[in-house]
Amino acid sequence: MSDLSSLGERKIIELIYSLLDKPPITPIMFGDDVSAIPLHGGRLAVLKTDMLVGSIDVPPGMSLYQAARKAAIMNISDFAAKGVRPLVLLVSLGLPRSFTKKDVEALAEGLNRGAREHGAYVIGGDTSEAPDLIIACMLYGVARSLIPRSGARPGDILAVTGYFGNAAAGLKLILEGLDAPSGLKKTLIDSVYLPKARLAEGLALVQSRAATSSIDSSDGLAVSLHELRKMSKTGFTVNFLPLAEEAKKFAALYGFDARELALYGGEEYELIVTIRPDRWLNALEAVHRVGGSLIQIGVVTKETSICLVEGEKLIDIHYRGWEHFKSSNASK
Amino acid sequence: MSDLSSLGERKIIELIYSLLDKPPITPIMFGDDVSAIPLHGGRLAVLKTDMLVGSIDVPPGMSLYQAARKAAIMNISDFAAKGVRPLVLLVSLGLPRSFTKKDVEALAEGLNRGAREHGAYVIGGDTSEAPDLIIACMLYGVARSLIPRSGARPGDILAVTGYFGNAAAGLKLILEGLDAPSGLKKTLIDSVYLPKARLAEGLALVQSRAATSSIDSSDGLAVSLHELRKMSKTGFTVNFLPLAEEAKKFAALYGFDARELALYGGEEYELIVTIRPDRWLNALEAVHRVGGSLIQIGVVTKETSICLVEGEKLIDIHYRGWEHFKSSNASK
Repeated sequence: MSDLSSLGERKIIELIYSLLDKPPITPIMFGDDVSAIPLHGGRLAVLKTDMLVGSIDVPPGMSLYQAARKAAIMNISDFAAKGVRPLVLLVSLGLPRSFTKKDVEALAEGLNRGAREHGAYVIGGDTSEAPDLIIACMLYGVARSLIPRSGARPGDILAVTGYFGNAAAGLKLILEGLDAPSGLKKTLIDSVYLPKARLAEGLALVQSRAATSSIDSSDGLAVSLHELRKMSKTGFTVNFLPLAEEAKKFAALYGFDARELALYGGEEYELIVTIRPDRWLNALEAVHRVGGSLIQIGVVTKETSICLVEGEKLIDIHYRGWEHFKSSNASK
Repeated sequence: MSDLSSLGERKIIELIYSLLDKPPITPIMFGDDVSAIPLHGGRLAVLKTDMLVGSIDVPPGMSLYQAARKAAIMNISDFAAKGVRPLVLLVSLGLPRSFTKKDVEALAEGLNRGAREHGAYVIGGDTSEAPDLIIACMLYGVARSLIPRSGARPGDILAVTGYFGNAAAGLKLILEGLDAPSGLKKTLIDSVYLPKARLAEGLALVQSRAATSSIDSSDGLAVSLHELRKMSKTGFTVNFLPLAEEAKKFAALYGFDARELALYGGEEYELIVTIRPDRWLNALEAVHRVGGSLIQIGVVTKETSICLVEGEKLIDIHYRGWEHFKSSNASK
């Protein structure tokens, strides 16, 4: 009998999936960022649930308002990766009996804020007593199409919507009680407490019809590339590591490896996408039009390895990052 | 500052609601059994989330398979009350690290079973580590119309889909270590461990176009009548208390008040509906056709009180039953 920490979150999900009856039509593979079923008129009903657990997912110093907003953002980021506009959010809220009225107000305001920032409304839910703060959000939207994890083809351009490493640096700063000049510190900490979902970018990408696959990077750049690879059955050569300036400065301050922060950090909500080369300019223009960035970082390969090119060296990008049950809580 | 146990679950939900931005169109009131938004073609997207928490909602002796099945049933029962067919279920699963692979398998099988019993499929979700078992289900369906809590009119017939008291008796039996003849004991305990959702009845009722309001009775017959009253702004006179034979026998065995079990027990999943008198026979026929029962228990009144007629006496039915934060866990 193997226990959960040796299985890890992904094997647990595979185990559950193997025991479920399968619906007749599945517009998107199980294990993608969202679930979907066909609606009348060729549309898709798109659904997502993701849960925030106080003792696991809320770092020290994060307010309840920020935690609730983040719970909404976690779900919206998955919709963003598929290019689907979220319409409504429901929430199952588990509250310790010791919480105050003010705590509940902060949670309601955070949820409302996370949804409204992206045009969605909180329309229902449930509250229960629980031994820990639980915020299980459910997101719903309707789409004509969506960008799966499985569509990358060799020759496609690999791109991201922003630079990586700030959330990992911010988390290190918080958990290890480190310091940094105030402007830098604020940017790093904000990236942990106030993450952004790249919804405008995702919607622009689906409209540009240029993206062949997409995933959000909440489990880290490295893990997300591996997950994309697994579903697309391709590999990636990364020529340019999209390392955030602030993370670089922070790493220099303490002698950390900035690459580690960018690749293996997690809790970042950038999109990682593959783009048809003949539509690269369409994608770029669409994302720029909404005020976003699209940064070319590599290319999709037939070989299923994932390498980082550094000068004349090829460095393997490992499957390593945050994983529930496997990782220790203190590291998050 | 008032804490959660003095507020209680319903006031907490009202507080949260008061802080949310409201969507432009709401086909069903906040606080009804489900949430909904309009889809193209006059249909409604119907959504529900409800969460089961191990230490609060799982009585001793209930297996993980049964707990997971119950988590699905809790949500499906709310769809049943609205007459909406559930299509898909998603789940956010919180698992203590001490759980085994076998535990996860039991949960997957219970969820699958609860959904498949009612024609729905489990199509996605998320797992997290958590200090307690958390099963937050999300249910989705599409409907042309639904039966709200708010439509009861004076003169309508008050009816239920089954008899009450067995779940409360079963819970008493389990929690207080009582005994009963084996056949009786099994029926009572099964009503706790293997609750049924009245989906076929709810779908038949919406098709009969006879029901004016409906609610499920998971918070108990008394509380559910009060909630129906609140949204419909009517009262009820109950002429016949639908007391289950088994609960009656159990109460006689130990000298309990059987009425208490039926009115104030909770964790039962019968539907409580109001029916237009001129369509009573249509409703009855529709429910019988699917093998269900529809038992007339009273009438909707203009006066907003809720009374039970016993011989020449009128007894007030109080707002009393299970409520998160207010009730003690041991009583459930």
